[in-house]
Amino acid sequence: MDVGFIGLGHMGSGMARSLIRAGHGLLVWNRSPAPAERLEAEGARRAADPAEAFQAEAVFTMLADDHAVRQAILDSGALERARPGVVHIMSSSISLAFSQELEAAHAKAGVAYVAAPVLGRPDVADAGELNVLAAGAPDAVERVRPLLEAIGKRVWPIGEAPHQAHLVKLAVNFSLAAAIETMAEAFALVRRYDLDPGILRDVLTGTLFAAPAYKTYGDLIVEQRFEPALFKLPLGLKDVRLALEAGEAVHAPLPFASVMRDNFLDAIAHGDAEKDWSAVSRVAARRAGL
Amino acid sequence: MDVGFIGLGHMGSGMARSLIRAGHGLLVWNRSPAPAERLEAEGARRAADPAEAFQAEAVFTMLADDHAVRQAILDSGALERARPGVVHIMSSSISLAFSQELEAAHAKAGVAYVAAPVLGRPDVADAGELNVLAAGAPDAVERVRPLLEAIGKRVWPIGEAPHQAHLVKLAVNFSLAAAIETMAEAFALVRRYDLDPGILRDVLTGTLFAAPAYKTYGDLIVEQRFEPALFKLPLGLKDVRLALEAGEAVHAPLPFASVMRDNFLDAIAHGDAEKDWSAVSRVAARRAGL
Amino acid sequence: MDVGFIGLGHMGSGMARSLIRAGHGLLVWNRSPAPAERLEAEGARRAADPAEAFQAEAVFTMLADDHAVRQAILDSGALERARPGVVHIMSSSISLAFSQELEAAHAKAGVAYVAAPVLGRPDVADAGELNVLAAGAPDAVERVRPLLEAIGKRVWPIGEAPHQAHLVKLAVNFSLAAAIETMAEAFALVRRYDLDPGILRDVLTGTLFAAPAYKTYGDLIVEQRFEPALFKLPLGLKDVRLALEAGEAVHAPLPFASVMRDNFLDAIAHGDAEKDWSAVSRVAARRAGL
Amino acid sequence: MDVGFIGLGHMGSGMARSLIRAGHGLLVWNRSPAPAERLEAEGARRAADPAEAFQAEAVFTMLADDHAVRQAILDSGALERARPGVVHIMSSSISLAFSQELEAAHAKAGVAYVAAPVLGRPDVADAGELNVLAAGAPDAVERVRPLLEAIGKRVWPIGEAPHQAHLVKLAVNFSLAAAIETMAEAFALVRRYDLDPGILRDVLTGTLFAAPAYKTYGDLIVEQRFEPALFKLPLGLKDVRLALEAGEAVHAPLPFASVMRDNFLDAIAHGDAEKDWSAVSRVAARRAGL
Repeated sequence: MDVGFIGLGHMGSGMARSLIRAGHGLLVWNRSPAPAERLEAEGARRAADPAEAFQAEAVFTMLADDHAVRQAILDSGALERARPGVVHIMSSSISLAFSQELEAAHAKAGVAYVAAPVLGRPDVADAGELNVLAAGAPDAVERVRPLLEAIGKRVWPIGEAPHQAHLVKLAVNFSLAAAIETMAEAFALVRRYDLDPGILRDVLTGTLFAAPAYKTYGDLIVEQRFEPALFKLPLGLKDVRLALEAGEAVHAPLPFASVMRDNFLDAIAHGDAEKDWSAVSRVAARRAGL
Repeated sequence: MDVGFIGLGHMGSGMARSLIRAGHGLLVWNRSPAPAERLEAEGARRAADPAEAFQAEAVFTMLADDHAVRQAILDSGALERARPGVVHIMSSSISLAFSQELEAAHAKAGVAYVAAPVLGRPDVADAGELNVLAAGAPDAVERVRPLLEAIGKRVWPIGEAPHQAHLVKLAVNFSLAAAIETMAEAFALVRRYDLDPGILRDVLTGTLFAAPAYKTYGDLIVEQRFEPALFKLPLGLKDVRLALEAGEAVHAPLPFASVMRDNFLDAIAHGDAEKDWSAVSRVAARRAGL
Repeated sequence: MDVGFIGLGHMGSGMARSLIRAGHGLLVWNRSPAPAERLEAEGARRAADPAEAFQAEAVFTMLADDHAVRQAILDSGALERARPGVVHIMSSSISLAFSQELEAAHAKAGVAYVAAPVLGRPDVADAGELNVLAAGAPDAVERVRPLLEAIGKRVWPIGEAPHQAHLVKLAVNFSLAAAIETMAEAFALVRRYDLDPGILRDVLTGTLFAAPAYKTYGDLIVEQRFEPALFKLPLGLKDVRLALEAGEAVHAPLPFASVMRDNFLDAIAHGDAEKDWSAVSRVAARRAGL
Repeated sequence: MDVGFIGLGHMGSGMARSLIRAGHGLLVWNRSPAPAERLEAEGARRAADPAEAFQAEAVFTMLADDHAVRQAILDSGALERARPGVVHIMSSSISLAFSQELEAAHAKAGVAYVAAPVLGRPDVADAGELNVLAAGAPDAVERVRPLLEAIGKRVWPIGEAPHQAHLVKLAVNFSLAAAIETMAEAFALVRRYDLDPGILRDVLTGTLFAAPAYKTYGDLIVEQRFEPALFKLPLGLKDVRLALEAGEAVHAPLPFASVMRDNFLDAIAHGDAEKDWSAVSRVAARRAGL
């Protein structure tokens, strides 16, 4: 299949490589040229601008945030000039409100729109082992299924409204942040009783919480290993804020998210903005006098 | 080994049966006679009072709360009349402050004291598959290790101070309550966007949260299956309160526990006291207008 | 003095009338014509658009929110065509970020910019008895002081950066919301002990809390008199959100504001969006089972 | 009237002096003798123990907490040996649960029980200018009204159940703590925008919050004047905890109290236990990086 790809950060480059490996023809664009040049060396062609990437049969967008997507997709006029029949696959983690705005813009331009945010870090993207959360009109999702299967080990059907996939992505990241805060408070508590938090981590991850979320972040927090950051702390704040905004739009209070928002701010105010988001655990420790 | 057993509720009876199965001689006591009679039929002898149970080589206590333990162990004079060399194994989930008071009382009476609270429900206790959190003087723990291994599939060494095991038990239950609240908020959020919460549960438990805590309670919350209660809601409130009190004693704020305490009260005020503690999830749903 | 006035809602009309009464010549504009016609009958002249109002010596803006101000002041080109030497007085309650953006836009256009948000309701505005929070370059504030004194019983000098006055306005409304929530929780508590909350209100407002905030809202909450709304509940949510956003920009956690945000959402989810913002007190009562 | 007085701390001594000044005969007791000797020099007689003080026509108790009251009143057997017809006036700030226990103990002993906690600091007590919150059976309150009027500038009738007066006292202190936290957050916010918090304090206390609570604590917080402590921080924690416990007993969530509890713990963990309770404001400042 002839596939456009907009946005070649760590995640996007990994996903593009998976597509090349699966035999698809790639037409890539990135704001800064270096990542596009690297993929050219691996067999991709380069697009001059985002609009050109929309001349393929399907096109992925994997950009940093609402603002970058707005510039590349809406402000560029890419939708209006899109090749008839193209399916646009939005893998960026964007806000609910913007995802809903994009649904309307695609409908107006007559471009099929599928949301496919992913779970997994860059190394997982490189290996084509992501979990893909797919939502959109069933026939559109069906047409791009081979592409989604190329980047992920599993494609999760979420619903027919693309923003529902972005909602689930936000809910998963909210749950991760809550797991981090839960361990942060529990570890601070046991430390104040002179107990090694590694013992509590072992009990949790050896019994009822034997899951990647607790194992990965439990280790980082116990070992206070927050650098290099896999996911920087302000990105955690952003996702919690997006969850709060999604809740506000439908009048759903999220008191855990409110607590976490305050803690992320506290962490940034204390100079931890460059650390991994699990460094928000330092707030619970500091507040307990540790 | 000759083993006393005080407290034959669902959990205690299951643990006692595991000990009988492992070939130990049981001397049991319970406030109401029926459970003791049932175990007598299975080969146990009955003690006339808690103090008699302290005439064995080791004695378990598995009672409901601080108050019941205080009556049976401290007010009864059982410690003062204990057989020399007996090891007292406290499996009840009690408060940190009371566990520390018991440490002092045992030291004064010259009775060895091991804390061994357990993770698992009655059916797990029946099967001898509990996770046992063991803390106490190493030689005392060593002497009763065969008993702990008889009731559990795994014995977790926690530390030398018995109250540390009770602390870990509280921290695990705090983490469970936090997982319930996390799903409650996330499920309420997606429901307000007309998404089946079962889809989010599947994504969570199929990816980063593939652990018993999320699977068990995710199902109960999605299916709104809160009766019969495996662990009643006021017991959840009690454990959160014990965590808050343990934090207060060492000046450790626990903002997630504070949110949960308020929610458990809200749930009870709305008539859900007889339901499973996962029914606290109805608070997030109700507050979102669901 | 020749004074433009943009925005003739209840507050704006009252302020404009105070200026007329003080002998100033008014040049008024409003999106819908009726309020402008009424003021014309009282001696004002009408401007064809916001830009025309900027041809006076000073011009007030009293519009509903960021969006309305952006349209009337920035998108209209009013600043670029402003009469040289005009002082623009922003009395709207706007976000901190937008106030800072307006500072930059005025500096670029060479238009003097004074912030003068006010405390007081429409009847207070009608009487010229507002409290005026004034911030801006000292010479600009000095030039419009007679105008500020015409609309207010007192002009509070806040600082030299206009956004600081908007910040103080947000802080005052945050404090009002907190007083409402404080009484809501305290009244719910005493009601659960069968005590008339009017007794607690009398003690509070007769002793340490003998202030308008507690008297006004204490009465409304005790008497459950939430209609007609003096300040609608979603406006309270808006101001709390603006405080949270102002805090987020400088990494200042505001846990009370977080609690209030969740409660305002809960109130709206329960159908109280048309009521006075003190109806948020129903949340604490409902959660206590009242 | 012949009046017993148990507990001669700063508050109790001031109240006792007011009674002497009003011409009543005082029979005083205190655990440590010095304060009783001082009052003897001012005309009081000394009682050998609390029970002797119950031989007067009325007897006040003004002790530090539940524990001290339990020892002096319940454990001492004072109630059983009380002079027939004596009215016991409880001015200590005690927990709701204990106040209810005392109601039952007095009913059993046939001793009239009036609750009369007070608002005001020691200097106000010295001047006889306290606000007295009176609750109890109407005839009992009537009999001791001259005494209540001697210690207070105003007697507030609260209800017929004594614990309701203690409840109102808790609610007032909860409201004070909430006012402190409100200013703490608002002041931290404006400081992060380089605004002198004294300006916000002036606006608040000059307009809608012109009340002693905001004036007194606003000054202390702006001037960071936390020593000498008028009311030590752990006492603030205690009162918030008592409010939370009172709420828990009737299933009333108090989310503001939950936030404050966490902040008082944070303050103590950071070494501020000897400071005035308004030093809890340092938590909001510290969390904002100030």
